[in-house]
Formats: sequence, C-alpha cells, structure tokens
Amino acid sequence: MDLEKIISNVKNNREQIDFNISVDCVLFTVQDNKLKVLLTKLLPGNEWVLPGGFIFRSENVETAAIRVLKQRTGLDQIFLQQFNTFSDPNRFLFRSLIKDLGLETIDIVQLPERVISIGFFALVNYELITLTGGEFEEDTCWAEVTKLPKLMFDHQIIIIEAMESLRKELYFKPIAYNLLPEKFTMPELQKLYEIILDKKMERSSFQKKMLKWDIYERLNERKTGGAHKQPFLYRFDTMKYKVAIEKDIKFGM
Amino acid sequence: MDLEKIISNVKNNREQIDFNISVDCVLFTVQDNKLKVLLTKLLPGNEWVLPGGFIFRSENVETAAIRVLKQRTGLDQIFLQQFNTFSDPNRFLFRSLIKDLGLETIDIVQLPERVISIGFFALVNYELITLTGGEFEEDTCWAEVTKLPKLMFDHQIIIIEAMESLRKELYFKPIAYNLLPEKFTMPELQKLYEIILDKKMERSSFQKKMLKWDIYERLNERKTGGAHKQPFLYRFDTMKYKVAIEKDIKFGM
Repeated sequence: MDLEKIISNVKNNREQIDFNISVDCVLFTVQDNKLKVLLTKLLPGNEWVLPGGFIFRSENVETAAIRVLKQRTGLDQIFLQQFNTFSDPNRFLFRSLIKDLGLETIDIVQLPERVISIGFFALVNYELITLTGGEFEEDTCWAEVTKLPKLMFDHQIIIIEAMESLRKELYFKPIAYNLLPEKFTMPELQKLYEIILDKKMERSSFQKKMLKWDIYERLNERKTGGAHKQPFLYRFDTMKYKVAIEKDIKFGM
Repeated sequence: MDLEKIISNVKNNREQIDFNISVDCVLFTVQDNKLKVLLTKLLPGNEWVLPGGFIFRSENVETAAIRVLKQRTGLDQIFLQQFNTFSDPNRFLFRSLIKDLGLETIDIVQLPERVISIGFFALVNYELITLTGGEFEEDTCWAEVTKLPKLMFDHQIIIIEAMESLRKELYFKPIAYNLLPEKFTMPELQKLYEIILDKKMERSSFQKKMLKWDIYERLNERKTGGAHKQPFLYRFDTMKYKVAIEKDIKFGM
C-alpha cells in the first residue's frame, strides 16, 4: 500500500466526493465449514477493516458499494443488501486518522470530523472470487466470524449486525443455495444452514421444510463417492421459486 | 411557516450540520381501518413531504430521527427502525430547492448538490400523538398509503419501501398489538394484521397462529356491547414474549 497514493487520492477527489459519508461491505462466505467475512488492511501494522470507501457525488450508495467490492474481488454481479447506517459521533474521526497515518500533508481543515457509514452485506461463494487489494493494494483475508482479529473503528459491531441481518434475510430469500454447486444434496444444504444460522437442526424436519417450499427439484441422480448411503441430488428451480414468491411463501427455519 | 426562519436556520447551523445527509421518517398508523402515514408540508402551495431533517455533527442518525419526530408529534419514546438509504444523484438537489423556495439570500455555493437520506419507519397509535408543525410550523396530516397526494423528491418510493420493511418486521416482532388498547379481541387483532399486510385472513387459522406463539394471555373477560357473540379479551404478555424470543419463535403470517 502506497501512502502517496492515498494522499493524492484524497486531494484529487476533493471536488467529486463528500468525505463525511462512506460505505462498508460485509462479504460473507462459508469456507471449511466456517462462516467467514472478508477483511482488508490499509497498512502493515494497522488493524483490519471491512472493505469500504467513499461515495462519488455522481453515484448512489449501492453503486459505490459494488465498486468497492469489485475492486477487491473482481465480482460485478453481486447482490448487496443494505442493512444499517453507522453514525456514532466518535466512530471514525477522519482528521485524527489522517494524523495517525502520518498524512499531515493533506490539508485536514477541509475534512469532516465524523464519517457516517452505510453498511451492506452479501453472501458469496468464495470460489468465484480472486482476492486483490483493490486500488490501494491492501492485504485481504477471509476471517472466521467467531475468531475476528482486532478491528478498527466500529467494524466489529458492523459485522455482528450484518450477521443478524443475514440470518433474517434467510427467511425471505433462500440465499444459501448460492454457495453450493449446481447439484447438491439435502445434507449439504442443511450443513450450510447450520453454519449460517449457528444452530443444529434435526435432519428429517429440515428436509420436510425444504421440500414443503417446493423450490428444489429432486433429480434422478444420487451423489456418489461417500462411504454412506448415497443421497439424492437436488437443484434450485428458478421457476418454482418465482411461484413460491408469488404465493408469499416464507423460508423460516 | 416562516421563510426567514429557514434562512436563519441554515445560516446558523453551517458549523454544526453537514447538509449533504438527512433523515426521513415514515410514521405509520392505522386510523378508520386504513393504513396511514404522516406527511408534512413546508409551505402552502408546496407538495407534501415526509417529516425529515438534517443531522447535527454531535448526534447519530437515530437521535436525529427521534428529534425530528418529537418536534412534530411530541413522542419521545418511539421505536424507529432504519430500513434503507436513498441516494440517487438526482433525488434531492439542495441548491435547486433553495432557489425554488426563493431563498437566494442563502449563499448556496457552500451547500451540497445531492442530499443522501436515511429512512426510518415506526408504527404508532395515532391517539397518543398531538400533531404539531415542528420547528417551522408546517402543515401535517395522516394520509392513506393507497391514496397518497403528490409528494416531493423520492418520498413516494421511500414510503413504498418502508411499507415493505414494516411487513417484513412483523415476522420478527408482533408490533401490531401496540395499536390496540391494553385488552383486545382476536377479531380486532386480525383486522389490524389484515390492514397492515393488505390481505384477508381466515379467522380460525389466524387465531391458531396467534395462540401457537403463546404471547397473548386470554383473560376471563369478554368484550361487551357488540351485536354478535361476545369474544374473549386478550392481553399481550411481556414475560411470555421474552420466552418466545429466546426460543427464536418467528411471527410469520
């Protein structure tokens, strides 16, 4: 990461950006049977932060959030859900941060003190992502949500609230299947729900619920290779899902 | 409403407020069996708007939203739920508005062009509210959500999204009972749900669901006065509700 680059970025964008409002993105995935979140680090030795950035005056906040994530993951087809705004008057003191980073060459008088940040989350398949450091070549990592490193600002609170929102969202959209290959088994789907919701579920009642929604098509194929009984494969059915949404079906566990 | 007051307000608050970010509040109630929303009007002849305002640098956005509503309703114990942020680059052009209002005496160069607004909603009992025009003595009214007058900016979109969020929120919190007297009947509760969700429900399955959640206590009293069979009275049970929340019960219809 290049200090000079940050300085020139802030200076060059004075006229295009309001520095008192930003976006922060909580990108969830499931990797090694753990719920994880994408973190980045501005400078070696700094604490970790969520991928985030400022909003150009010519773009809306959703566009800004997609841009921020695209820079770091390559993803441009991503369904980001806005969930809350973080605005404690002491959450992110921009002028102090500039000083801490040793960037006094920026004229800080014109910068705001408090930055309000708008939080977004998404649940993605990490296999579809190539992590890059974005514009400022930051370090990036997938961190387990139960073993977060020390984070800057209020980013731990943002992650906790994003997790609650992700779990709520599962009632309205069966987004978990996005993390599985096109064909998957009920035990695989159940495992994902258990990881995301952080609770164990009873196998037969899980299966009963999933099938009641009538959005998964059972294929005439079984998963091969396992030591146990070979379970049937399923596929998410977009047409049936549309019908379920029209019927106002909820996907509560 | 006093034009001079607006001018001096903007001028006096230059140092305390960032004028590029605001809050807008969608306050719902049920009155005459209709879902309604609180609207205000800045100037006679103007279009209606949602009650909203700017955020002091010393307060967070929730405090700002509560302040804005308290000024107009007297309520200070109000559970406001943040639901989305509105940021289309053309949604609210502050400099243009100042010109339209004939307020050229404000030095508009220092004002932002686009204002980003954070949306909040709440569902309240209108009987607990005394409508006042707030700081600028605005006109106020309860408008039916299905018969909204022409609104300024993107406020119609904000109301539609708030309604969707209100309906989602009902799955997680049984907030409708707040609009009823302490003791109420199942038909009264059902009517409220039907109005808020905008759908008819079957009486016995509604009652079955409500009782399954085990958060309403049936009293040894019946409603008197009606022409029909006198239905039992119920009361919301805070202790039982806590138990239900701990059990992670959802209140989906």
